[in-house]
Amino acid sequence: MADAATRREFFAVKTVAETLAGFRPARRTPVESIGLDTAAGRVPAEPVRAPHDLPGFARSTVDGYAVQAADTFGASEGLPTYLEVAGAVAMGAAPVVAVAPGGAVEIPTGAVLPPGADAVVMVEHTQEAMPGTIEVVRPAAPGDGMVRADEDAAAGAELVPAGRPLRPQDLGLLAAAGVTEVSVHVRPRVAIVSTGDEVVPPETAVLAPGQVRDATASALAGLVRDAGGEPVTAGIVPDDREALETTLRSVLADADLVVVSAGSSVGARDETAGAVAALGEIWCHGLAVKPGKPTLLAECSATSEGSTVPLIGLPGNPLSALVVFRLVGVPLVWRLAGAERVPPEPVVRARLSRDLASATGRLDIVQVAVCDGVAEPLFGPSALLSVLARADGYVVVPEPATGLDGGTEVEVILYR
Amino acid sequence: MADAATRREFFAVKTVAETLAGFRPARRTPVESIGLDTAAGRVPAEPVRAPHDLPGFARSTVDGYAVQAADTFGASEGLPTYLEVAGAVAMGAAPVVAVAPGGAVEIPTGAVLPPGADAVVMVEHTQEAMPGTIEVVRPAAPGDGMVRADEDAAAGAELVPAGRPLRPQDLGLLAAAGVTEVSVHVRPRVAIVSTGDEVVPPETAVLAPGQVRDATASALAGLVRDAGGEPVTAGIVPDDREALETTLRSVLADADLVVVSAGSSVGARDETAGAVAALGEIWCHGLAVKPGKPTLLAECSATSEGSTVPLIGLPGNPLSALVVFRLVGVPLVWRLAGAERVPPEPVVRARLSRDLASATGRLDIVQVAVCDGVAEPLFGPSALLSVLARADGYVVVPEPATGLDGGTEVEVILYR
Repeated sequence: MADAATRREFFAVKTVAETLAGFRPARRTPVESIGLDTAAGRVPAEPVRAPHDLPGFARSTVDGYAVQAADTFGASEGLPTYLEVAGAVAMGAAPVVAVAPGGAVEIPTGAVLPPGADAVVMVEHTQEAMPGTIEVVRPAAPGDGMVRADEDAAAGAELVPAGRPLRPQDLGLLAAAGVTEVSVHVRPRVAIVSTGDEVVPPETAVLAPGQVRDATASALAGLVRDAGGEPVTAGIVPDDREALETTLRSVLADADLVVVSAGSSVGARDETAGAVAALGEIWCHGLAVKPGKPTLLAECSATSEGSTVPLIGLPGNPLSALVVFRLVGVPLVWRLAGAERVPPEPVVRARLSRDLASATGRLDIVQVAVCDGVAEPLFGPSALLSVLARADGYVVVPEPATGLDGGTEVEVILYR
Repeated sequence: MADAATRREFFAVKTVAETLAGFRPARRTPVESIGLDTAAGRVPAEPVRAPHDLPGFARSTVDGYAVQAADTFGASEGLPTYLEVAGAVAMGAAPVVAVAPGGAVEIPTGAVLPPGADAVVMVEHTQEAMPGTIEVVRPAAPGDGMVRADEDAAAGAELVPAGRPLRPQDLGLLAAAGVTEVSVHVRPRVAIVSTGDEVVPPETAVLAPGQVRDATASALAGLVRDAGGEPVTAGIVPDDREALETTLRSVLADADLVVVSAGSSVGARDETAGAVAALGEIWCHGLAVKPGKPTLLAECSATSEGSTVPLIGLPGNPLSALVVFRLVGVPLVWRLAGAERVPPEPVVRARLSRDLASATGRLDIVQVAVCDGVAEPLFGPSALLSVLARADGYVVVPEPATGLDGGTEVEVILYR
């Protein structure tokens, strides 16, 4: 029976690295145009370019006097340059006076450089010699104290690239350029299918013997949202191949990614593999990671359009399911939305409090609590979600390693 | 004039560390009860406890046979133990047979342990000797292959703590426990007030001479959302103390935090300080950080309830404003929502491509691009938002340092 079970499963085990490099569905979500106020984290489908020069006019960056730099050459405390103040520029208005040789125009930070000026002397480097005349005590070079009309961005220059989720400062630059709508990929719709004869909705107040509430769907929905996707929970299907196939066929029509949290027994996993095999091509069945080995990846046919939809069959226990979805599901959601890289995760270095054993050829994901620079591995049966809720992050023991010694400095990927 | 300008501003300069430690408004948002599907990132107001034992029944964690462990002591390949199979347990159902001495009951992963059993032998460590009888080839200790009824959480145990934003796995654990509503702090309402005679809305298609579009409000709204807050943009106010005071008075009635992106000139900043001084107490005026010195922090009276509302006056130029809001504003938004710590930021180590100069006693925030382990500082006038849009992250040159040498390994805080 042991051999039969092993044969039934894991006929195509892949490493996590092979999976990230090799399982790269071509599917991308369509493009929509949205306003800046909802664009944070969304992925532009094309580079956004500046419609005109930014700021669009030469601008002072200090409070002071617009001058002709040549007039100030050689100026010092001992031998100041005297300049005649011809007037002032007001904020947000066109200058009404120009700077002639030997002249200066008072100017606040951010105002338009008057004609004739090629530098702004900081007010701290001047003093009033007599009404209408200033002393300049330091020389200014052309371009000092100002930005050019196209210094933030020239017309046509790329403001934000395609494929990188929009960050707050990107929204700021787009607003400055007057770009208030942006073409981004639609949020990937991620259908979440729970399976298991023992699984009941979280709302179930009183459990019958042997029943457990569906923990994975709620946690997956949170991970999907974090990755910019839109979770669509498709309910709980019993461990029955036909019922699962019917549900999968239905969600495939309207999803960019399907995630099945498979039943936890070998038999239940067989049903999942059977149903998926009927709907598409299984890419791998078994992932060289602990926890998380009983993972299945496939490309299924989306009935409506002839395109394919990736599918992830996750292990039955919630902890393993969430570990695997972070490793291979989250990058997939970003990819479906057109992102070229997954946004970076927080990490911290810490010393391992004890030895960690691991098998060569397998990635080990070890949950840890971090305190005062020490990472304390949290052990427990992999079925325990409370281990994950107590963890501050996790340590990856790489495939070639046979373990890590206590005291080793490791990188902890932190949950946030 | 230089001395006058210096006197007018920066009469109470604080370091960033002093500010984070000392400017800690008591205000917290009220508490509301929400469903799990919208609870990610929200901060529980109280610890959430398990209403009953979890999983609630002793449960198999492997596919195999429920046994009495004592029966298997000494079992080996050479000298297997023979056990009589009394029946099977179905998923999600109460066991209908018990395990007697010398007996075994077939059980899938996740099913209820039958009465009499104290361990589960993995199917891989058994083989069928004849119909109805199995050989066990490895000994099992009591508790092997199973979890106790309260092993994930005992009734009354803390599932998630107060003060830590809810992570996907926390949602999973709450769902498993049947907790589908959770008491969390309301998202802090952050009023964003833009000022400046030259500032016009981002929608403005054609700019008059000297006008600039409001970049800061859009970027701040993104940062506020990232920090779990709700941005409320209050529009653009001219550089006029009375107009600003009127606007501030109005937004203070309905905000948990007020952010003013002050005008960029010394005069405009004076107007802000004057308006704020009329509405509350200025805690600091000037932050020892570059860029970002012209920052103002205050506690203002919220007219309606006698409570106070923190206010941040940001520097006028967008890059400085965003740097400062990340440093002191983001932690404040989390704090208002009851979070005890700010969620960690992604970081990466890299070598500086060149020397960085800095003044002692001042924190320097240097924008960098990171490529192949090298951090390349991005310089440019601090008014340029494009520098921030090109940056992958930033390096902090600490207050005591007079700079960092090229080649130094530094920590880059990455934008995501």
